[in-house]
Amino acid sequence: MPFEKKELKKKSENISDWYNDVVLKAELADYGPVRGTMVIRPYGYAIWEKVQEIFNGMIKKANVQNAYFPMFIPMSLLEKEKEHIEGFSPELAVVTIGGGEKLSEPLAVRPTSETIMYAMFSKWIHSYRDLPLLLNQWCNIVRWEKRTYLFLRTTEFLWQEGHTAHATHKESINWVERARAWYQTLYEDYFAMPVMTGIKSANEKFAGAVSTYCVEPLMPDGKVLQAATSHDLGQNFSKVFDIKFQNADGKQDFVWQTSWGVSTRSLGGLFLAHGDDNGLILPPKIAPIQVVIVPIHKYSGDLSKINHYIQTIDKELGKKNIRCHYDERYTISPGRRFNDWEVKGVPIRLEIGTKEVDDNVITYALRDTGEKQTVSKEQFLDKVDSLLENFQKRLFDKQKKFLDDNTHSISSWDEFVQIMKTTRGFLRMFWCEDPVCEKEIKEKTKATSRCLPLEEKEEEGVCVHCGKPSHHRWIFGQSY
Amino acid sequence: MPFEKKELKKKSENISDWYNDVVLKAELADYGPVRGTMVIRPYGYAIWEKVQEIFNGMIKKANVQNAYFPMFIPMSLLEKEKEHIEGFSPELAVVTIGGGEKLSEPLAVRPTSETIMYAMFSKWIHSYRDLPLLLNQWCNIVRWEKRTYLFLRTTEFLWQEGHTAHATHKESINWVERARAWYQTLYEDYFAMPVMTGIKSANEKFAGAVSTYCVEPLMPDGKVLQAATSHDLGQNFSKVFDIKFQNADGKQDFVWQTSWGVSTRSLGGLFLAHGDDNGLILPPKIAPIQVVIVPIHKYSGDLSKINHYIQTIDKELGKKNIRCHYDERYTISPGRRFNDWEVKGVPIRLEIGTKEVDDNVITYALRDTGEKQTVSKEQFLDKVDSLLENFQKRLFDKQKKFLDDNTHSISSWDEFVQIMKTTRGFLRMFWCEDPVCEKEIKEKTKATSRCLPLEEKEEEGVCVHCGKPSHHRWIFGQSY
Repeated sequence: MPFEKKELKKKSENISDWYNDVVLKAELADYGPVRGTMVIRPYGYAIWEKVQEIFNGMIKKANVQNAYFPMFIPMSLLEKEKEHIEGFSPELAVVTIGGGEKLSEPLAVRPTSETIMYAMFSKWIHSYRDLPLLLNQWCNIVRWEKRTYLFLRTTEFLWQEGHTAHATHKESINWVERARAWYQTLYEDYFAMPVMTGIKSANEKFAGAVSTYCVEPLMPDGKVLQAATSHDLGQNFSKVFDIKFQNADGKQDFVWQTSWGVSTRSLGGLFLAHGDDNGLILPPKIAPIQVVIVPIHKYSGDLSKINHYIQTIDKELGKKNIRCHYDERYTISPGRRFNDWEVKGVPIRLEIGTKEVDDNVITYALRDTGEKQTVSKEQFLDKVDSLLENFQKRLFDKQKKFLDDNTHSISSWDEFVQIMKTTRGFLRMFWCEDPVCEKEIKEKTKATSRCLPLEEKEEEGVCVHCGKPSHHRWIFGQSY
Repeated sequence: MPFEKKELKKKSENISDWYNDVVLKAELADYGPVRGTMVIRPYGYAIWEKVQEIFNGMIKKANVQNAYFPMFIPMSLLEKEKEHIEGFSPELAVVTIGGGEKLSEPLAVRPTSETIMYAMFSKWIHSYRDLPLLLNQWCNIVRWEKRTYLFLRTTEFLWQEGHTAHATHKESINWVERARAWYQTLYEDYFAMPVMTGIKSANEKFAGAVSTYCVEPLMPDGKVLQAATSHDLGQNFSKVFDIKFQNADGKQDFVWQTSWGVSTRSLGGLFLAHGDDNGLILPPKIAPIQVVIVPIHKYSGDLSKINHYIQTIDKELGKKNIRCHYDERYTISPGRRFNDWEVKGVPIRLEIGTKEVDDNVITYALRDTGEKQTVSKEQFLDKVDSLLENFQKRLFDKQKKFLDDNTHSISSWDEFVQIMKTTRGFLRMFWCEDPVCEKEIKEKTKATSRCLPLEEKEEEGVCVHCGKPSHHRWIFGQSY
């Protein structure tokens, strides 16, 4: 149901209150009956379907195939890789009763699928001819949470997880980078969100990985979102799960593996990044509705005339593959409907009344700038594609400026503390890479290392926190 | 890895052994590490993705929207509707530990989502303006099984479940029928499987429904597959979950609901129905690969010439939106590759050797009839669409004849027993509709009522089993 605009909390006042409010009012999601769970409503799910379409396009072109593995993982399988189970055991949901009987072995609900998949890989892989094995699955994942933060932190979430096996480390590393690059494209080109990207520290890497690559955008409150990760698993799992193959020379070797994922969490970042006091702002490339048409009518006599005119516009936009919605809720005033679509962040709104029909023109309003113009129907149809492209670019440029303005190269601990107390953001600095030092930094400031950017060269310096010799400039920040 | 054809079990000798064998060898699925679970491998999952694409097309046109609801259902919610929990409680998987702690209330893993969805519906629906609510979700479902029968009976499976809420019973009944018709279209037009369709008996209806509509194809062994169901829930759930709305006259009423689903079980039926001793036969409309191209080469010198020729064909077929695969596994002999694609049921195989290149012709083989022809490239490209259409029609016609030949109108208990002892099939007969009578029939013959076909008129007769007065001719059969 529509609501009064004044009821919406202000992003400029309290971003966290605004976020919860706008996610509910834009009908993206709702709280589920169990603590920590959420319902993804159709408008939110339609955005996830866009992500699936975009990402499936990328991976299928690279010959990755979708599959589906069981959700229940026997505890004994999960426990095979020590670092892996240590990382995940505090977050598990465990099934102990099945078909009315106590199970002899409890089953974990998948917190990620390495172990169940790799138990199968060892069955399927025998020769170099079976490699590379390139699989992906779209599924639900459970990691126990006590507090729900819609999309950003929920016990159950949706994701894709890619898992590949290769004959050489060189080839698997190449795939880790390839997946990382897909995530960067997804964020930058579709979500209009520039990211910091690089390699994780020992503390922050995936439990069981040799190394983890990440992409991380900066949120308006100066905090950082862990947005997507790609892991070099080396032979850590293949040795434990006995995934061996005969190479072209007839020798046995363990496969080299990767895994990589992005989840519905990414949508939380999308909503946080672009919205304003009036609600969401969705990048056109990911918006379920790119153009909404709202009829403005005073007398019922106007209606059929307006309706006919709108239908021709709707049809023309459809031909151009523009995702268009005609809002026919006549029992609700146009003003309230405008409000609805603003909260929902639809990029372009068309207002069509008798004046527009008589003059053969279109009045359009842009969600981000608020700009409103009346142009001939033909003119609008000619330029609607570029209006959407420019909209997308404007959102990206704004985020890019924000990220650049809030990335600080620092050389003293005082600067670190000062920035984390005020604006936060990305801190670029020499760091010793010692896990103990990182823990101390976190305790003092809530900040952790985010990544070692790919383009950083080796340099000699001293750790901004502990003064020990350092070889790289890392990025620090406070994560969600 | 390819295998020798002689290793494949024969459908004509033991359909159940053949089925398990072909599902594994065609790499549709594999057994998971936990009893009752399975892994859907890429070739099987690609067929499920086709089902999703086809069914999403149908429902989205009817304004049904996809959403996602939590998988964990508090036991107290599940227990609200008495008949519902009685039906599902023997099959539940229950989570009792979360985040390392014993849960105060155990959580069931969804065996179906009526209860969790309708707890939300009561929050969202207030006025007739909020109706109809038309939602669907694609998700995993758990119903405990001790024995796995790949696709046909597994603890975890994938499905779609549609759930709608309406202002009147007339409208909701209309939706029950609409969903039933979609399933009939899915089976008949895409799976090439004619179905018996009608309404379920009291024993066989969904736990909590007023009535259940079904579509059920006949399998080659004369058994019947419960393939998809659509339920009229009346106000059974809305009264329990307090889903009330204010109608246009300002009065409060409970909504009228429907739910309907089809699962990965349907794929089991598809594989069983069409295959033969050489493996699967997939209907072109649902086949992930419609045409496979196998190069035949004797000298490495031939290869580049053949490769160039195949690429032009591949491109032309792509332009026609035909799903084509070029099999470049040169380390495996053409004969073994033919065998592979036969087992995988690809409708058309092209064999391209130097002879084909030199003469500018194509040699094609049809998977179902085994017919092999050499025609000019242009001729083939002209007729490939009709080859696929005729293939689809041939499969349907064969199944239709089988269904008709094995639907027996009977009037005596002797006939019933005799047919169930031999060929099985659909038995059309007067039945008293008494649940006790149905239980006795099942105990004696394993057969149950399958449905009361939609077209059956009221007639007076006596029950074939117990002799009581009967008003309709029902369909009986032995279900999977």
